[in-house]
Amino acid sequence: MTDKATDFAIEGHGDISVGVSGAGASGDGSASATRITPGNALRPEDIALEIRRGQVKPSDDVAEFALRIGDDALILAQRLGHWISRAPELEEDVALGNIALDQLGHARSFLTYAGAAWGKSEDDLAYFRSEPEFRSAHLVEQPNGDFAVTIARQFVVSYYQYELYRRLTESTDATLAAISAKAVKEVDYHRDHSAQWVLRLAGGTEESRARMIQGFQLIWPYVDELFEDDELTTRLAESGAAVEPSSLRGDFDRLTGEVLAEAGLDIPKVPQALGGGRRGKHSEFLGYVLAEMQVLAREHPGASW
Amino acid sequence: MTDKATDFAIEGHGDISVGVSGAGASGDGSASATRITPGNALRPEDIALEIRRGQVKPSDDVAEFALRIGDDALILAQRLGHWISRAPELEEDVALGNIALDQLGHARSFLTYAGAAWGKSEDDLAYFRSEPEFRSAHLVEQPNGDFAVTIARQFVVSYYQYELYRRLTESTDATLAAISAKAVKEVDYHRDHSAQWVLRLAGGTEESRARMIQGFQLIWPYVDELFEDDELTTRLAESGAAVEPSSLRGDFDRLTGEVLAEAGLDIPKVPQALGGGRRGKHSEFLGYVLAEMQVLAREHPGASW
Repeated sequence: MTDKATDFAIEGHGDISVGVSGAGASGDGSASATRITPGNALRPEDIALEIRRGQVKPSDDVAEFALRIGDDALILAQRLGHWISRAPELEEDVALGNIALDQLGHARSFLTYAGAAWGKSEDDLAYFRSEPEFRSAHLVEQPNGDFAVTIARQFVVSYYQYELYRRLTESTDATLAAISAKAVKEVDYHRDHSAQWVLRLAGGTEESRARMIQGFQLIWPYVDELFEDDELTTRLAESGAAVEPSSLRGDFDRLTGEVLAEAGLDIPKVPQALGGGRRGKHSEFLGYVLAEMQVLAREHPGASW
Repeated sequence: MTDKATDFAIEGHGDISVGVSGAGASGDGSASATRITPGNALRPEDIALEIRRGQVKPSDDVAEFALRIGDDALILAQRLGHWISRAPELEEDVALGNIALDQLGHARSFLTYAGAAWGKSEDDLAYFRSEPEFRSAHLVEQPNGDFAVTIARQFVVSYYQYELYRRLTESTDATLAAISAKAVKEVDYHRDHSAQWVLRLAGGTEESRARMIQGFQLIWPYVDELFEDDELTTRLAESGAAVEPSSLRGDFDRLTGEVLAEAGLDIPKVPQALGGGRRGKHSEFLGYVLAEMQVLAREHPGASW
């Protein structure tokens, strides 16, 4: 983990003025933060710099959209972080921890960009919004449950995020495209990780199979919400900045269906939950997540830590 | 985080037979798992493979020693994992999460190697030992407290681990040397990270300075235990496999003293705790840490997850 810890640990102190050219450290060495093009991969620090220089600013619609997907990633990251040292294998602890940090990285980028529309930082948005101001889907606030529930949730969210980010790499909004280009590569591995676990648990012992089935029963009611269109997404689709979530559903169904078929699992026949996360209506779970997440920053607002 | 997540996420499924030559992914591209030399950096998977091939096995003394330092890293990793999404800044969430994963990686390697002496896996050792069988120092089981307490703990442990691993790269035990060679590079960044925070908090607001001082007051009683020699370390020092912990103290005092002086902080004048962690005597905190860490694996012993 050396390289990663370095990047973030050192940069955390604001005493390093270089590093901007490191946009896309994971392979896009040619990317430059002052030249955002689709396909470039941006770190949140790069985006913040662009914003300060007045070089990028999202439209209000794009900001609202970035908030939705950033919140999804943020809440999921906190849920996943709980697994560090608590998974069934140390190797898996590390895997889930890495996925949590990937999601946190995506959240930071999307929230940094969204915040530029309102003069807010990523930390303002993460720590100082109240529950109805969060735009995450109900899926990501669902409790970890046992390991199979976490895997079912991760399976659904990864296949959804993959299709979403893949489309967004062609967004007419260059920053949204650049963030998504980095994120889609990482989510591709999350997708593979969760699919392998679905197969392993479904094909394992009677107990692990029963738990995997139960995991999907608990998680599946939150699928439809991910693919709901509304006025915002319709406007964004018309401008080419984003796509209608409903347009992702075909590929999602096909690809998840292939894995479920290979695992010998049926698509759960369960009623769909009402949703409403994109409008700030959340389940009782989000409040607890936020309480834990926000307590330290709120105890010392504006303090140097 | 792409590259890292990849490594671990994919390898977690055992369906990839390559990757062994990836020993020392962070820069030691020339390392080969079948040719352990001091300076090579080994992943736990590589060590496990060497063990299965009968190519490495620790002496009983080395195994007991590896258990001590592996347990330190394991317990610290769990403590740090709690900070994901709960630090005062999203950037810091990521940094602490990365440090937690580094520590977990070191723990996996040391425990994998230790386990070879007794036919145990890393998971056996992490999840199926009882409290008195753990050999971690009291320092790492101390609660996170507020952010300054976590930073004080991390500062002490990082400077200690750096000196320890640096000496161990010259161990006559090639595997211990190889694991330490990888770990020391990562711990070097942990050291820098915590030192920067000590300076930042001590030089920040009145509140942050007071908390930093209080953090060191709470943590410093657990320093002496780290540098205690006993029969095991004396034997290991004689054979050249390890060094006496007491021999690290001079450099630890000098280097931490420099940072504390720069921060305008005194070395805390506090009584030292009794210690005993290396003999399996722990504070009441370890039991809670283990309960959380072990519950899932113990609920389903031997299950495919």
